[in-house]
Amino acid sequence: MERLKEKIEKEGSVQGSNILKVDNFLNHQVDVNFLNEIGREFARRFQDAGISKILTIEASGIAVAAITAQYFGVPVVFAKKTESKNLDQTVYKSEVFSFTKDKTYTIMVSSKYLDSQDRILIIDDFLANGRAALGLRDIVEQAGADLVGIGIVIEKGFQPGGKILRKAGIRVESLAIVKTMAEGRIIFEE
Amino acid sequence: MERLKEKIEKEGSVQGSNILKVDNFLNHQVDVNFLNEIGREFARRFQDAGISKILTIEASGIAVAAITAQYFGVPVVFAKKTESKNLDQTVYKSEVFSFTKDKTYTIMVSSKYLDSQDRILIIDDFLANGRAALGLRDIVEQAGADLVGIGIVIEKGFQPGGKILRKAGIRVESLAIVKTMAEGRIIFEE
Repeated sequence: MERLKEKIEKEGSVQGSNILKVDNFLNHQVDVNFLNEIGREFARRFQDAGISKILTIEASGIAVAAITAQYFGVPVVFAKKTESKNLDQTVYKSEVFSFTKDKTYTIMVSSKYLDSQDRILIIDDFLANGRAALGLRDIVEQAGADLVGIGIVIEKGFQPGGKILRKAGIRVESLAIVKTMAEGRIIFEE
Repeated sequence: MERLKEKIEKEGSVQGSNILKVDNFLNHQVDVNFLNEIGREFARRFQDAGISKILTIEASGIAVAAITAQYFGVPVVFAKKTESKNLDQTVYKSEVFSFTKDKTYTIMVSSKYLDSQDRILIIDDFLANGRAALGLRDIVEQAGADLVGIGIVIEKGFQPGGKILRKAGIRVESLAIVKTMAEGRIIFEE
């Protein structure tokens, strides 16, 4: 998606060898007009896939998933990261290691909101090591639902997540794949 | 907002004396079509207020803020709850006590995304004790921005947040105010 690559080049910033900050439009401040372009692009790629529900993970996946869901006319379910007094007792759970935060956390989805009839599209802002996506896939499998595909805004192609997921037979659609970002220069895969 | 009250009555569930679960459409599964009705209602109430930015807090405020922002044509900024390697060094911070989780956490917003020219609408899903809203107001004030108002989907009128905020001179627009929910029966304020 050319407009996304331009936006990453213009507004993104590289820190160290593998942190790409797009806080300006995706992860902290959210450019809702631009997210609509992203939503339309996911819809174009998955329009014939019979999606019944979009699944994401709090927090920064929620905005892109909610805007995208408008183009599918389906609900969004977001996996929660923390135990809350308010959460149902009957949940699907999985463990996810976060490299960004250097810790393992539990994600959970109430069993009410996923079932074996569902055809799930996972949406997330970033794909790096793939741990969050694998945790979400685990939850989809626990529910007996079909994982139709994974839509990612920015994939870090130099980290292993994309390869792991595609090798597992999952359809991964990344709107921009960063090949390298050595010395602060971002090179995309074609 | 009558449709919201109906939806709370039909799909919400009361647990104990003060937990109202609306996980079915707002806090875990998100009914994006209905969120568009909510967004339109916030826009109707604040349309002439010259809002330049919507501010919310992760995680469950993000979906309603992002959908609502479409009706204002402005960006959303969401305050973050956790220290991340990826966050800017220059941030506005505030402390918020969560009754739901029984702990104090720090919220933060990069100083890049709020400035003294901004006219801020805070959007959140729930208002109970008002601690999150007060933390966000603190951040707005640190930025020297104007807090135009606070838009809340569901206010628990039997908890003190609404009173505290209105007494402080803040315009609070709650789309549904629950007066009591004794014995599982939800009564709204008119």
